[in-house]
Amino acid sequence: MSHIAITELLKGTVAVDSQVTVKGWIRTRRDSKAGISFLAVHDGSCFDPIQAVVPNSLNNYEEVTRLTASCSVSVTGTLVKSEGQGQSFEIQASSVEVLGWVENPDTYPMAAKRHSIEYLREHAHLRPRTNVIGAVTRVRNCLAQAIHRFYHERGYVWVSTPIVTASDCEGAGEMFRVSTLDLNNLPRTDKGDIDFKEDFFGKEAFLTVSGQLNGETYACAMSKIYTFGPTFRAENSNTSRHLAEFWMVEPEVAFADLNDIAKLAEDMLKYVFKAVLTERPDDMAFFAERIEPTAVTRLQDFVEKDFAQVDYTDAVTILQNCGKQFEFAVEWGVDLQSEHERYLAEEHFKAPVVIKNYPRDIKAFYMRQNEDGKTVAAMDVVAPGIGEIIGGSQREERLDVLDQRLEEMGLNKEDYWWYRDLRRYGTVPHAGFGLGFERLVAYVTGMGNVRDVIAFPRTKGTAAF
Amino acid sequence: MSHIAITELLKGTVAVDSQVTVKGWIRTRRDSKAGISFLAVHDGSCFDPIQAVVPNSLNNYEEVTRLTASCSVSVTGTLVKSEGQGQSFEIQASSVEVLGWVENPDTYPMAAKRHSIEYLREHAHLRPRTNVIGAVTRVRNCLAQAIHRFYHERGYVWVSTPIVTASDCEGAGEMFRVSTLDLNNLPRTDKGDIDFKEDFFGKEAFLTVSGQLNGETYACAMSKIYTFGPTFRAENSNTSRHLAEFWMVEPEVAFADLNDIAKLAEDMLKYVFKAVLTERPDDMAFFAERIEPTAVTRLQDFVEKDFAQVDYTDAVTILQNCGKQFEFAVEWGVDLQSEHERYLAEEHFKAPVVIKNYPRDIKAFYMRQNEDGKTVAAMDVVAPGIGEIIGGSQREERLDVLDQRLEEMGLNKEDYWWYRDLRRYGTVPHAGFGLGFERLVAYVTGMGNVRDVIAFPRTKGTAAF
Repeated sequence: MSHIAITELLKGTVAVDSQVTVKGWIRTRRDSKAGISFLAVHDGSCFDPIQAVVPNSLNNYEEVTRLTASCSVSVTGTLVKSEGQGQSFEIQASSVEVLGWVENPDTYPMAAKRHSIEYLREHAHLRPRTNVIGAVTRVRNCLAQAIHRFYHERGYVWVSTPIVTASDCEGAGEMFRVSTLDLNNLPRTDKGDIDFKEDFFGKEAFLTVSGQLNGETYACAMSKIYTFGPTFRAENSNTSRHLAEFWMVEPEVAFADLNDIAKLAEDMLKYVFKAVLTERPDDMAFFAERIEPTAVTRLQDFVEKDFAQVDYTDAVTILQNCGKQFEFAVEWGVDLQSEHERYLAEEHFKAPVVIKNYPRDIKAFYMRQNEDGKTVAAMDVVAPGIGEIIGGSQREERLDVLDQRLEEMGLNKEDYWWYRDLRRYGTVPHAGFGLGFERLVAYVTGMGNVRDVIAFPRTKGTAAF
Repeated sequence: MSHIAITELLKGTVAVDSQVTVKGWIRTRRDSKAGISFLAVHDGSCFDPIQAVVPNSLNNYEEVTRLTASCSVSVTGTLVKSEGQGQSFEIQASSVEVLGWVENPDTYPMAAKRHSIEYLREHAHLRPRTNVIGAVTRVRNCLAQAIHRFYHERGYVWVSTPIVTASDCEGAGEMFRVSTLDLNNLPRTDKGDIDFKEDFFGKEAFLTVSGQLNGETYACAMSKIYTFGPTFRAENSNTSRHLAEFWMVEPEVAFADLNDIAKLAEDMLKYVFKAVLTERPDDMAFFAERIEPTAVTRLQDFVEKDFAQVDYTDAVTILQNCGKQFEFAVEWGVDLQSEHERYLAEEHFKAPVVIKNYPRDIKAFYMRQNEDGKTVAAMDVVAPGIGEIIGGSQREERLDVLDQRLEEMGLNKEDYWWYRDLRRYGTVPHAGFGLGFERLVAYVTGMGNVRDVIAFPRTKGTAAF
């Protein structure tokens, strides 16, 4: 008999009194004086384990009484309604096969007790076996699937923009070099510089920081595209919001303006939050109980409320007149700090806010200049409890304006030849945004640190496993 | 009025006589003597453009007669049934707004004529505007979405295994180094070696060649997982089948053996091929007409036939007795060459074949040893017209056997501490496989070179755009 996922049994998709087999790992074992053992078996398919009731009449009952956390088992028996609290169904076991013991249970790193989140991080290969990281893994998957579904249903094409880039467009300041050069025998040019012509790609190459510019080339042909892939920052940022390697979602839409993508961002976030509320109530209940009391309610609020919309200029006025003392003073022309963004979302609007039309001098060259000559069609989505979650803009589609901006910023037009080509040949208004996927998962789960929502986090000094 | 995707109009989801607006790029323009212009407008949403019939009564008709390939336009008009051949609906235009001209149409790199596939590669930022790369892009997206859907529907969890790895498990021979060290001022240890403690990750780091080992840690907690992400090979392979950067799909399944994952591979391939046949008949008809005459029929065959199953040992006998002269002689103990695999699939079995249980000496340390002491539970899926498309194995879950194998192969047990932990703590039988996504797309589309099925290919000497 083949085995069945525990989630199917707990959901009630299998008739009571069926013979079933589950395979998984022991979470806990309890023995009654009456000679019955209760095994809680989990298999990762849902938050709850299923209880197997094991009578001492089994041939190998002695073995069963030696089972400890994370021993792997195959349990066969009859599915019955549970009379215990908090569980719908259980298995009256007729057979328990031990597949794998735990070597020295006393020193097993994931022994059944509370571990600190930092301790779990050091055991990243075993931490998905815990309640908390198991739940994070399922919610992360649910969000990723919902993102793909959201875009696919709307006719967007997933494009894999390159990870390795030798493009000079991105500014190499905080990028990782990708190379096969022998560090002990570096090739040199006549002038004594490193000769990257000898390197694998024939020039200096880096890990991408964003797929946006490449994504624009595909939006200017397929109309609606998105990327969902890894991006990299070689920043020495030891914070709970930064990773050296993280996943980004970047839609890019032709024939769209700033309002269109503000709407797209709102629709997308609501769609994926609804998916989590619908598909992972078990994990979300756990997060609300143990990690962040508002984990569920704040998502429910989020999906019900219209996003507020405010111009940067008006936001500055609101902040200046609100009577609140900020650490950083607010004045027109400077970027908003996290404290300002959170005040707007949490106290002033009490809703997610789209802040639009930032001063052009604090924004990137590719953002579309507004007619006021001072601002660009940029937006940030700021949400209560998290701050900035999405940043985007309408792109400058006018070649003359783009060129002027490149010049003002001291950038070399030649380096952007292919990006400029998009404006030379059938240019179209277009816009897009970027969403840091780990920040999204951290927000949804209430986990305080992005290192705990990606399987094997990479940060300054750490690339373990 | 907001615009609508051309695919919706051609599919007939909008009522005839509706007022509609489409936005896209000119594919062709034809002017009749009667003072009517016919514009073929595409927007990437499907293979076919829609025809807009433009009367000379429009105010800007003179502009319309100057439109060339890739000019961008917004066309508004009445949707009508088309009387022309090969098109279901067309638009009687009441307005044509030119959004973007093509600068000097005579030198536009994608002017409407046949270009060589190599030429297109050099213009990777514009090539999605062509029929062929547009079709590839949609089919690639269809396959990617189907892969996610296939696994999600079956309870698999998508896990993002790390891109940067400092793990010593993978064998650094053909890997790319990831570093922030200043090449002109390399830190040295007392002994004069490069001091990687000073590098970003505190040790030498590389781009991953496979997510498998990391994926196993999650399978040994969540039961069913898959990865879908970029992987890297620093190989100097200038072939139509190799990329330095490519996407891999790697499912890993706990409580599964070799036969289970052979079945999974068969189910997955059939599922995604059916998705392409159902969802992209337009693009597939184009590939059958222009690229590979059997593009459609071979997928239809594929989904209808059961995969053949053969042991490596029996395959060797078949090849030795078939009377065919191969370039490379076949004998037990050597790996099968492409010519052998294709003979088996195309001539002997006339179906996709799963070849199982290879000699252990030609396979990786982690593959499960069979009881014969000579073979391991490895498999390759070989298909007519492509050769090997999937490679997988059951993993060695027995710590003592794994350790012995590591020792025999001269590998350091300490380097594999976390991989060995999975066998020390509740080990389970498990198995998985890897699928090179670009090879899959190349097979489905009939494109002869993997460089033409990924947006911006990276190969030896090339990381342009």
